[in-house]
Amino acid sequence: MKKHNFSAGPCILPQEVLQQASEAILNFNNDDLSLIEISHRSKPFMDVMEKAISLVKELLEVPKEYSVMFLQGGASLEFLMVPFNLMKKGGKAAYTNTGAWAKKAITEAKDLGEVVIVGDSSDKNYNYIPKGYEIPMDVDYFHCTSNNTIYGTQMKEFPSTPALLVCDMSSDIFSRTIDVSKFDLIYAGAQKNMGPAGTTLVIVKNKILGNNGRKIPTMLDYNTHISKDSMFNTPPVFAIYVSMLTLQWLKDKGGVQWIEKINQKKADLLYREIDRNPLFEGAANKEDRSNMNVTFLLKDNSKEEQFNKMWTNAGINGIKGHRSVGGYRASMYNALPIESVQVLVDIMRKLEQN
Amino acid sequence: MKKHNFSAGPCILPQEVLQQASEAILNFNNDDLSLIEISHRSKPFMDVMEKAISLVKELLEVPKEYSVMFLQGGASLEFLMVPFNLMKKGGKAAYTNTGAWAKKAITEAKDLGEVVIVGDSSDKNYNYIPKGYEIPMDVDYFHCTSNNTIYGTQMKEFPSTPALLVCDMSSDIFSRTIDVSKFDLIYAGAQKNMGPAGTTLVIVKNKILGNNGRKIPTMLDYNTHISKDSMFNTPPVFAIYVSMLTLQWLKDKGGVQWIEKINQKKADLLYREIDRNPLFEGAANKEDRSNMNVTFLLKDNSKEEQFNKMWTNAGINGIKGHRSVGGYRASMYNALPIESVQVLVDIMRKLEQN
Repeated sequence: MKKHNFSAGPCILPQEVLQQASEAILNFNNDDLSLIEISHRSKPFMDVMEKAISLVKELLEVPKEYSVMFLQGGASLEFLMVPFNLMKKGGKAAYTNTGAWAKKAITEAKDLGEVVIVGDSSDKNYNYIPKGYEIPMDVDYFHCTSNNTIYGTQMKEFPSTPALLVCDMSSDIFSRTIDVSKFDLIYAGAQKNMGPAGTTLVIVKNKILGNNGRKIPTMLDYNTHISKDSMFNTPPVFAIYVSMLTLQWLKDKGGVQWIEKINQKKADLLYREIDRNPLFEGAANKEDRSNMNVTFLLKDNSKEEQFNKMWTNAGINGIKGHRSVGGYRASMYNALPIESVQVLVDIMRKLEQN
Repeated sequence: MKKHNFSAGPCILPQEVLQQASEAILNFNNDDLSLIEISHRSKPFMDVMEKAISLVKELLEVPKEYSVMFLQGGASLEFLMVPFNLMKKGGKAAYTNTGAWAKKAITEAKDLGEVVIVGDSSDKNYNYIPKGYEIPMDVDYFHCTSNNTIYGTQMKEFPSTPALLVCDMSSDIFSRTIDVSKFDLIYAGAQKNMGPAGTTLVIVKNKILGNNGRKIPTMLDYNTHISKDSMFNTPPVFAIYVSMLTLQWLKDKGGVQWIEKINQKKADLLYREIDRNPLFEGAANKEDRSNMNVTFLLKDNSKEEQFNKMWTNAGINGIKGHRSVGGYRASMYNALPIESVQVLVDIMRKLEQN
């Protein structure tokens, strides 16, 4: 029996993608060679890279003055690369502090210049999205996190800003339509809606690079990777291949607009039950609730053991909450079928009836 | 028919490893979940990471005062991390320039301090390993490349140095016995003898870190990764898993001492034919010939088409030489069976007889 996989990331991927990836490990492209034992400069892999990049452009309608890269090091390395590439010497950047990852991004930027925290939800353990803040006119860029995996909050709107708009979309890219032209730089670790752990997507408006007067180390310089089509050095072949397959799956199914509707239905289904069922309560501020990561608590701790047994027996995986929030977190990324959400909702009802 | 895969990297991996990796993509650990859709903090993956690290320690007999890490970014990111972690502010390092990769390592170090090139084989297109050089007493470390994939040269001995000894072993680690205690830091991209592209192995003597007076960005600081057992952020799950399988395969077969003998036999077989056969000549200086990458040339270019047809028809893959050397390059990493080398040798003989 296939599990109902609510894991927060790495997370569920489409079964068809896993099947194709498994086959490619043994025989890729009918060449009697494994995907992972061929040269990254061979035609079959160059085609994979090209297709992955073009699928990103197509699915997100990336304007032509932007570049798309597949890098390594996760969003954590982007926390450093962003200020290295965009912050002027003696410069300044504005950040929102909306969770553990935002905080780490801020730490790296502080090493390279001044950071102004324009919005901060740490006062309530990050259970809401700050709004109505002003972004100073003199910052080099404004940085935000679109979705906070741990706390279950999500930005529904992005502020308009005179500065460059930079966004960490690790946990909700490809889950909803976005207007890329409003952003100057978007980055995302692959391991939520795009693929397995091991590669990071970066989308950047070309003209914003190379102007900050800094000497940027080769591997941290976006222009290095753009000029070599993400092949400056050996790329993470497998992670890029599986990302390509996952993006192809999304395109075949109907694209981002299609998945956005499904994701909305899944979120409505679970949040409705959380709000209806007297045993449960949501952890995040209602208007800031994430459609990707649903955080919720059992009001009566004595029912915990029973509930845990029930969902485990139903084949549910990965809904234990992050230690800093407690309770439960159901991550409902693109590949999670609505049937799995229904199974969870049914168990919540059963717990109430018992 | 399985190909004879002489690819320079990513390269051949043991068939048993590919089989297990393919299965793990569908069902890992009999949990009815894919390896790539579970949390990296789950017990099954934590076990993989722990086992991978302990296999490295066992196979290379790593002394206990060293740490072992699995990182991202390839050797190219290590080119930057090494000086960031080991070069003092206003410091100095000694490098040998033995090829394209050494050159890139030098470029990164130069951004952070002074670099003294103590040995340089660029005068002869890197076809030999410089020897007899002196390493200044006042450098923070000495850096060398143990094997030069493109040119087919390999260091047979390592100099004794008063400075820290740092080595890029990307293309020959686990292919021969080394005395780790003589080195202070060793790094290697996985994609030759260790696994697929997407992770980098670093072995470092703990006490050399944290002493250079530099503020090191979090992700570039070895101590970040050591303190979190290579789990500071989401690791490249698949690449580490396949590396673990490959190291387990090596251990089961007989370890590094065993594979060193096989690798010597493979190298002897091919070099003997190159030296015997009047149609061919080796590209690298004889005493510096690599046991991993055998570079050789056809003396008579008119035979090229015929030779290429012959090896292609025999199912040989990946022996076209790098553009900067030309001719041919047969990479004979650990997983390449001696039978594949024999097939190549037979074709070279046949070409002579025709």
